Amino acid sequence: MNPSPTLTYARSHGSRFLSELKEFLRFPSVSSQPERKKDVQRCAHWLARHLQHIGLERVRVISTRGNPIVYASWLRAPDRPTLIIYGHYDVLPGEPIAEWRSPPFSPTVKGQDLYGRGAADDKGQLFCHVKAIESYLRTARALPVNVRCIFEGEEEIGSTHLLPFIERNKRALHADAAVISDTKMLAPGRPAIGYAQRGGLRVEIEVRGPKQELHSGTFGGAVLNPVQAACEIISGLHDDRGRVTIPGFYDDVRNWSQKERAYMARTGPSDGKILQEAKVEHGWGESGYSLYERTTIRPALTLNGIAGGHYGPGVKGVIPTSAVVKLSFRLVLDQNPERIGNLFRRHIARVTPPGAQVSVKIFSPIQPALVDRKHPAVQAAAFAYEKGFGALPVFLRSGGSIPVVNAFKESLGIPTVLMGFGLPDDRIHAPNEKFHLPNFYRGIETSVWYLTAAARALRRQNFPVPLAVEDKEWVL
Amino acid sequence: MNPSPTLTYARSHGSRFLSELKEFLRFPSVSSQPERKKDVQRCAHWLARHLQHIGLERVRVISTRGNPIVYASWLRAPDRPTLIIYGHYDVLPGEPIAEWRSPPFSPTVKGQDLYGRGAADDKGQLFCHVKAIESYLRTARALPVNVRCIFEGEEEIGSTHLLPFIERNKRALHADAAVISDTKMLAPGRPAIGYAQRGGLRVEIEVRGPKQELHSGTFGGAVLNPVQAACEIISGLHDDRGRVTIPGFYDDVRNWSQKERAYMARTGPSDGKILQEAKVEHGWGESGYSLYERTTIRPALTLNGIAGGHYGPGVKGVIPTSAVVKLSFRLVLDQNPERIGNLFRRHIARVTPPGAQVSVKIFSPIQPALVDRKHPAVQAAAFAYEKGFGALPVFLRSGGSIPVVNAFKESLGIPTVLMGFGLPDDRIHAPNEKFHLPNFYRGIETSVWYLTAAARALRRQNFPVPLAVEDKEWVL
Repeated sequence: MNPSPTLTYARSHGSRFLSELKEFLRFPSVSSQPERKKDVQRCAHWLARHLQHIGLERVRVISTRGNPIVYASWLRAPDRPTLIIYGHYDVLPGEPIAEWRSPPFSPTVKGQDLYGRGAADDKGQLFCHVKAIESYLRTARALPVNVRCIFEGEEEIGSTHLLPFIERNKRALHADAAVISDTKMLAPGRPAIGYAQRGGLRVEIEVRGPKQELHSGTFGGAVLNPVQAACEIISGLHDDRGRVTIPGFYDDVRNWSQKERAYMARTGPSDGKILQEAKVEHGWGESGYSLYERTTIRPALTLNGIAGGHYGPGVKGVIPTSAVVKLSFRLVLDQNPERIGNLFRRHIARVTPPGAQVSVKIFSPIQPALVDRKHPAVQAAAFAYEKGFGALPVFLRSGGSIPVVNAFKESLGIPTVLMGFGLPDDRIHAPNEKFHLPNFYRGIETSVWYLTAAARALRRQNFPVPLAVEDKEWVL
Repeated sequence: MNPSPTLTYARSHGSRFLSELKEFLRFPSVSSQPERKKDVQRCAHWLARHLQHIGLERVRVISTRGNPIVYASWLRAPDRPTLIIYGHYDVLPGEPIAEWRSPPFSPTVKGQDLYGRGAADDKGQLFCHVKAIESYLRTARALPVNVRCIFEGEEEIGSTHLLPFIERNKRALHADAAVISDTKMLAPGRPAIGYAQRGGLRVEIEVRGPKQELHSGTFGGAVLNPVQAACEIISGLHDDRGRVTIPGFYDDVRNWSQKERAYMARTGPSDGKILQEAKVEHGWGESGYSLYERTTIRPALTLNGIAGGHYGPGVKGVIPTSAVVKLSFRLVLDQNPERIGNLFRRHIARVTPPGAQVSVKIFSPIQPALVDRKHPAVQAAAFAYEKGFGALPVFLRSGGSIPVVNAFKESLGIPTVLMGFGLPDDRIHAPNEKFHLPNFYRGIETSVWYLTAAARALRRQNFPVPLAVEDKEWVL
């Protein structure tokens, strides 16, 4: 299929595409705030209508016990391979709102950037594929490859309902590869394909002390302070060298060859570059590893938040009753999230001081993942990037986790191509998140090229599943 | 002056006294919450009207830059000594409201106890003296001793404006001794006179890390986490033996003789008793000292609260930008709060890790205080307790701080008698604060006896100041 008219269409409709993306960004589809549930649903329905409108077929808003999955497909080429395009329409909260220069859900173009929560993570990146599909369907009236779009609303909270949905609908979701645009490039004009991501595990501990708040004059110095106990427990989780102290934590961590580490050093960001992206002056962490290695091939334990006692305005001279700490593990091959959860529980029980009670909650285990850089679906992405951005991509490891990557591998047996259009300074998860508009437009063109290239690169290896299977009831 | 008719009056008006106290408790006069400012003022005016009504003279609501001071006096016996009666009408917040069995500002009698914020600390105790004064003025039409009532509205936030007010109005506030009922007895029927209190100092530290929240996948393991840094700093403030690690912290701590420590062991609460009061199973703190010693003759550093990052519902996988920690020192003779503040600042600067910025705020220095147990004003209190409660008091040290005690000593040169009517299980500063009603009624009778006994015990040692001096403008 000759993509030229398709590219011409994409180029001439850029400003409408941008207006549509802004419409998409206006939904505060925050999955971690229960009060936003309605907004999440409205966003799902908007997206589904949009997919219908551009000509995708079998469009569904599939209800789950959590947020809906938006599904659509185009499967009119039974002799060609099938590609899953995954993205997520849920976003993180806008808080702290005061730190935004324009409100998080009022998308605003400034210079070459579009500001708004979700602009890069992931509505803007997801939309590149949607607009590439539209461009084909409006020009060629067909796609070069069969496509299943799976856009979920719970990525930011661990894909709780998508993962079992995929497992239960293996046959209906049959495909040859998946592509996800939810990662970043190295710099403008320097594309990157993700080939590894860390896994994860979220934990929450509550440290309880006295049953009621105690006067700090009357009892200060004689009664265990649960906030202090929490600080001591937390502070004991790392040693002086930045290593996690939980016994057994590093047992299964894969040691990479000098060759792989040299490759990473060659292709990955330097320490200076990572510090610059983070806007900090000093690195931190496990000695003996570069910052790129620390965030990709080494596991990490990060404090996300803590609260205990009286922390509002004014003073309250008390020994508090409890403290709550939220942490997240980032795990690497071949760590197993369940095992790490157990080691954590055991460790906390061991270090809890007399007079404190500690309860541990464990959520959202995500397996680490690795994709073969030589897989045809990955090679096709390299080709598409060269066409779209005029440069061959480097292969990057990612420190984050897209939970579905592992489900695609385990349940569907297919590799995932992490073809990111974000930039390191997009401030995803932070105030003033943005998407670089040249990347939006080039992302659309790259997706146009990718759909063509993937069709050529992928050969169907499995017994073809009847394409109509998805029309049956989804197994929920 | 024969107190018999006065005592008869007090006994026969107990139920009205209780209704009035309930009225007093209904004001949410919370000094640490700016939104309660109006309530604090309404409470001050109610109290002033009440003092006027019972026959006190020169009643004033003295405005300050903070909350008003309620002043009243009776000075019609120029040949007799003058007693300051101090109390505070401000209270701590009711939060956490959900833990109260009856709302904090809806005073409720249950059995022999009156529940409500401020019931014991300090509205109920203060009211014992007010009702003793009323009983004299309604029966004898005079008091056995000159009296100045000073009731402030900022005790719970460090008496910020009262202390300089006293210093600036030394002459007008001339007196021979002060009495404060804002402490507790050993048990029902076992009265206690406070003769020592710890000083204090509040500190707040803010630990800042990255300028913006960072994705914990992308940067976790490579960038300093300010919440973790805060936990490490806090956790390093005590060693394994429960001692504060700030260099020089113990330099000036007074070592008490074996005799004094033996006296304390004989008269003070046992470890078991203190644990029972706190409703905890294990003691904590500096080894080598009893829990009573740890809370009175040994200094302490208590965490009052901490907050940083995302601690609300839901998850947010970020490296936070900052953490705030509120702490309070309890200091003993001969520690100097200013010096301790400087040592703290220096220590924090030394332990701040690279990549973190820490700012330190220091508030509310309070000097530790000690009163001579043999002072006539103290001996008069012992006599009054025996009359009121049928038992001689023990002499107790207090772990808390009433900031004004030191001002009375330094500015006015007078001792303060800490004649408490509270009980160890009154839950001051905690949900379900209460005042034991038999102590309220006996407290009134004890105050009746004390006013008589103090008149006899105190001889005026200073040149008498013209009594009308207070009628001039207060120096604000």
